[in-house]
Amino acid sequence: MNAKKKGLAPVAGFRFVGLAAGIKKKAGALDLGAIVADHPVPTAAVFTRNRVKAAPVRLAARRLRNLQARAVLVNAGNANAATGPAGEDAALRTTALFAEALGCAEGDVIPCSTGVIGHVLPIEPFERAMPELVAALGEDATTFSQAILTTDKGPKVAERTFRAQRRDYRVLAIGKGAGMIHPNMATTLAFAVTDAPLEGTALRAVLRAATDATFNAISVDGDTSTNDTIVLMASGKAGGKPLTGPGERAFEAALTEALGEVAQAIVADGEGAEHVARIQVEGLRSTKDARKIAETIATSMLVKTAMHGCDPNWGRLLAAAGRAGVSFDPDQAEVTIGDVAIFRDGATLLDAATEKRAAAVMKRPRYSITLRLGGGPGTAHYDTCDLGHAYVTLNADYRT
Amino acid sequence: MNAKKKGLAPVAGFRFVGLAAGIKKKAGALDLGAIVADHPVPTAAVFTRNRVKAAPVRLAARRLRNLQARAVLVNAGNANAATGPAGEDAALRTTALFAEALGCAEGDVIPCSTGVIGHVLPIEPFERAMPELVAALGEDATTFSQAILTTDKGPKVAERTFRAQRRDYRVLAIGKGAGMIHPNMATTLAFAVTDAPLEGTALRAVLRAATDATFNAISVDGDTSTNDTIVLMASGKAGGKPLTGPGERAFEAALTEALGEVAQAIVADGEGAEHVARIQVEGLRSTKDARKIAETIATSMLVKTAMHGCDPNWGRLLAAAGRAGVSFDPDQAEVTIGDVAIFRDGATLLDAATEKRAAAVMKRPRYSITLRLGGGPGTAHYDTCDLGHAYVTLNADYRT
Repeated sequence: MNAKKKGLAPVAGFRFVGLAAGIKKKAGALDLGAIVADHPVPTAAVFTRNRVKAAPVRLAARRLRNLQARAVLVNAGNANAATGPAGEDAALRTTALFAEALGCAEGDVIPCSTGVIGHVLPIEPFERAMPELVAALGEDATTFSQAILTTDKGPKVAERTFRAQRRDYRVLAIGKGAGMIHPNMATTLAFAVTDAPLEGTALRAVLRAATDATFNAISVDGDTSTNDTIVLMASGKAGGKPLTGPGERAFEAALTEALGEVAQAIVADGEGAEHVARIQVEGLRSTKDARKIAETIATSMLVKTAMHGCDPNWGRLLAAAGRAGVSFDPDQAEVTIGDVAIFRDGATLLDAATEKRAAAVMKRPRYSITLRLGGGPGTAHYDTCDLGHAYVTLNADYRT
Repeated sequence: MNAKKKGLAPVAGFRFVGLAAGIKKKAGALDLGAIVADHPVPTAAVFTRNRVKAAPVRLAARRLRNLQARAVLVNAGNANAATGPAGEDAALRTTALFAEALGCAEGDVIPCSTGVIGHVLPIEPFERAMPELVAALGEDATTFSQAILTTDKGPKVAERTFRAQRRDYRVLAIGKGAGMIHPNMATTLAFAVTDAPLEGTALRAVLRAATDATFNAISVDGDTSTNDTIVLMASGKAGGKPLTGPGERAFEAALTEALGEVAQAIVADGEGAEHVARIQVEGLRSTKDARKIAETIATSMLVKTAMHGCDPNWGRLLAAAGRAGVSFDPDQAEVTIGDVAIFRDGATLLDAATEKRAAAVMKRPRYSITLRLGGGPGTAHYDTCDLGHAYVTLNADYRT
């Protein structure tokens, strides 16, 4: 959705801001944003599993051990990654500045950074921007959704409502990312806020489940960044008791939908991507097995180039499935593209007419590829995009 | 080396042949070859770990359980993969034809196929070619080295001699493969013969070690094929007792060198490849850890596109290392390209002059990238090539 045109409906208990602080090279580019709760609220986060973690990721993880925060401070244009002790210091100082301006504890400000790697985050832009950053806080998250972008084509926002305890609750999810597509401009960031009441431990459990079903099931190029972070905050302002049981599950469903929409927008924004395919894998012994195969197919360069060429290449799909390290019987495999079956019982079904129909499906911006590999209960999916010349052009460019 | 011009020196106890049987579409293209020993000799093989194995791979694995064979029958142009029971039958029938023509047991003929997937291997070209295939057998392996190629730019041959038991022994290695680069034209095949005497079990152990150090440490695009096979035969014709101890190790060294040369030629032949880099990883707790990191870097699309752009992008190298699932301290990391250090003690060393020097190294056809990630004893290497537009063009082409 286009956040610019219509603005975003508020979520009770949260204010947002986004402005141009001069962190990005381009003059006037929005590059600093914040989400601020009225007071410290239950907050959970998931972080990159990469062993090389940026300074803000390490600081955020430490600060969120108590599952509580007042604010998230996000900058684009500089990832503050691989910056050693000076980077740690910069993360501490910039969040201290914001805590002072807000009048809250430093430990209640969560830092997120995205942008170029290997340069220590400069403090000065934060010092200069701080008065405006607090003064401009408002209910509309639109400028925030713009200020966190790097190589993205546009903002990525999704809204959901869900019902529990006879109330309507709201979920707002905002993300950025287009794969690790541009030299050193890595990172997926996502932020979700809700006016529902939840305790920190429930929040963490729901976020992990929702992340597994969404952000952990997408691939642009298989690389993970030093800064990937998803933060979830719950103000409880819409009233009621902390959600558990069916209410918690309703929240999880709404959050999964919202994060899923943002994640899909990130895959579709992969540079050079013209097609997004959902790799659906079924019939394995376990979900874990199905997931391994789906991920291997989704990150195969040969599958992704075949997608680019709209080539219903079942050989590459099966060969990728075969090297996932999971046991299955290829002679029982069934491969379907959209609604066109192209392989069954150990042999291809492709004749000229079928091939034409399958290729037509692959010309669509979105379609599914389904591999049924046995009779087991394990299923999983993984969203991926095609690999085209634009990816090579962008990523082979000399670092700027 | 160019096998065409000067011919290949014989290896006592083996004859070779390569001819045009009409399996490939292109008229007159060499596409059928064989290696024949004077009688059944110790033979070992390693096969693709892909769960989707072609019919010839399954048959070859069964027949080599006794570690003995008389001949290898290799065709290019058709992989006989994903062909179900009809494919099994074709593998059986074609090898039976050759066994009959040679006058040996069917079980002593090892089939290898490479080419398009999903089409049952036709028998007729084999029937027609059989008299000539046997009649044309000779000591020079040149036509054989040509007949096994698919999208390769040229033959890949390496020769070594080694000394043991006061004798000079010869090793000849012949391979094909250019990554899974062309639609459905997959597969790495390699064949090595020696006139040294070895028992089957020793042969198998030596082949596994040599393969791990060579073919299992190269990557064009991270995909493995349904048909990958390496066969090693020992005639013993140069005399002496079966090699053990130091003699066996001398053979392993020579075989590793020969297979290494063929493997490097395959990486350099990756379509669109302009650069081959040896990813050298050092200082880990174990070889296994070092290998995991080397492999993750070598198959990273972001690293491979940075190679294409001659970009000394340490951020991508470290980020790829970081997601390999191995523990190391990034603040102790040291990254060197050729002899140019670009990252040390958690910070980049790149200034304009250093960057220029590192980029100059990356313009070479071959260079090394070394990551020292701690003080441990674990080291490993992995050879990889750059990812350029030619790869996308070739692989996104509609299947022909």
